[in-house]
Amino acid sequence: MGFSLDILGCGSATPTVYSNPTSQHLVMRDRHFLIDCGEGSQIELRRMKIRFNRINHIFISHLHGDHWFGLPGLLSSFHLLNRTKELHLYGPPGLQSVLKLTFRLSNTWLKFPLIFHELKEGVAEEIHSDDSLSVHAFPLKHSVPSWGFRFQEKLAERTLNSTLAQQLEVPIYWFKRIKQGSDWEDENGNIHLNSTLTFDPPKPKSYAFCSDTAYSEEICEHIKGVDLLYHESTFLEIDRHLAEKTLHSTASDAARIASIAEVKDLLLGHFSVRYKNRFAMREEALKHFNAVQLASDGLTLRYF
Amino acid sequence: MGFSLDILGCGSATPTVYSNPTSQHLVMRDRHFLIDCGEGSQIELRRMKIRFNRINHIFISHLHGDHWFGLPGLLSSFHLLNRTKELHLYGPPGLQSVLKLTFRLSNTWLKFPLIFHELKEGVAEEIHSDDSLSVHAFPLKHSVPSWGFRFQEKLAERTLNSTLAQQLEVPIYWFKRIKQGSDWEDENGNIHLNSTLTFDPPKPKSYAFCSDTAYSEEICEHIKGVDLLYHESTFLEIDRHLAEKTLHSTASDAARIASIAEVKDLLLGHFSVRYKNRFAMREEALKHFNAVQLASDGLTLRYF
Repeated sequence: MGFSLDILGCGSATPTVYSNPTSQHLVMRDRHFLIDCGEGSQIELRRMKIRFNRINHIFISHLHGDHWFGLPGLLSSFHLLNRTKELHLYGPPGLQSVLKLTFRLSNTWLKFPLIFHELKEGVAEEIHSDDSLSVHAFPLKHSVPSWGFRFQEKLAERTLNSTLAQQLEVPIYWFKRIKQGSDWEDENGNIHLNSTLTFDPPKPKSYAFCSDTAYSEEICEHIKGVDLLYHESTFLEIDRHLAEKTLHSTASDAARIASIAEVKDLLLGHFSVRYKNRFAMREEALKHFNAVQLASDGLTLRYF
Repeated sequence: MGFSLDILGCGSATPTVYSNPTSQHLVMRDRHFLIDCGEGSQIELRRMKIRFNRINHIFISHLHGDHWFGLPGLLSSFHLLNRTKELHLYGPPGLQSVLKLTFRLSNTWLKFPLIFHELKEGVAEEIHSDDSLSVHAFPLKHSVPSWGFRFQEKLAERTLNSTLAQQLEVPIYWFKRIKQGSDWEDENGNIHLNSTLTFDPPKPKSYAFCSDTAYSEEICEHIKGVDLLYHESTFLEIDRHLAEKTLHSTASDAARIASIAEVKDLLLGHFSVRYKNRFAMREEALKHFNAVQLASDGLTLRYF
């Protein structure tokens, strides 16, 4: 239960020696997701000793280069490392065509099935669902079509009160049904209510990724109550004119969204290189929201 | 006179924590050339404190990703850093179309003129010439169309014997013509031969880049007598079957080419990640040629 998040890059626009462009690695219920893939993401995956091959789903938020220019290289590496299992890629219209052209030009025929799921402009929808989690995409407000993603655990089975089950001599073959919510009748005809036989499962955890975007309260309904919100924070308020011009957010914007959406924690990232001291970002955000963290390349956060 | 060469990356196929894919920065007669641009090249340029903006010519040898996947990011950075001056890009057919699509998808209109010079398949030709140097492209032997490049200084002006010129009281306005080869007649009608008034200029230096390629003696005429030859050396002889299968060279292949072409120095690179000990490459090459160096990321070689 819960999730871990590795920050592979949290810079904006151009990579520097100290900061990669956007990329994150999320592990939730044993699924390994890559969110955005700026240039150098595969190097950072190696540096953080994350095994490439466990990633089966990649999500690309939008087509500005600092969010996907590492993708052709990563897919090439999958190919060269003889990957054969399916890879699901979720991204904006056009991404598939540029990847196809890229590989056609180098006469490369990927050794694994690359299954492309095209995001729909202006549409919020579930884009992935399995027995333990779901992923929703929703539109952000940026200079090109851009999407946020919410990764949501599903409610797990109830936890068996194994001490009581032993005392009552519940047959093992009943365990699964009880964990799914059934009451149980013993051989004397006594009904044991499920609420006594089990404990509530852990509350499902959730993570939302919002980058790149200007301040937009419309996203709040999609990220409502998540345990962790990554929201871009390219600028400080002092440079609000730049944020407005480029359709990015300030640290205050991010914090106000976190507050309205009643998330638990806010993680700031996508910092402009103009700020040498990122602590000012945190200080600014703390005026509007009380649980603020700063992303940094190589950081791992765990929510269990 | 002469040149310096910075190795930004000398790995092959996939980048690793220790080794970037192919990219080099050549400075010859104050021109700054970038040769290939694998993923992460712009980071290595920053790490080596090479000023991006001095690069006006980029040469891409072929369209395998490890030789150009850093190019979209580098061009984006030029754009974001407000470059306005022309950039000349020399590359294979198709490169322009994939770059155009990449930038169209992100709604990016480059702020500087990007002038594309398409290389002709199977053709050796001069692709750049100015008053002090020339660049020739020539076909290599690889699984996709691939070109080598020869960077050749032109003969400089003769050097004035300034001590003699002072003794003879040669007027300053004559200096330029004398350096260009003229004799000079003094006021008494005495002819002073150019050969006494000047020294020979330094011998023009040259550099050749050959990657990726299988062993091919056909390239020797194009790289004849260069001061430094970079020749790919992906494999050792023990793995010759892999070299033949993938149309790459062994260290022995590179050294035999260096010997036939009578170059001065050989620089090996494009090493497969399978070899932990690269000194074996040098040892193997030394059996066929006596001046062998190993490329490594961050290395700078100077030929002055």
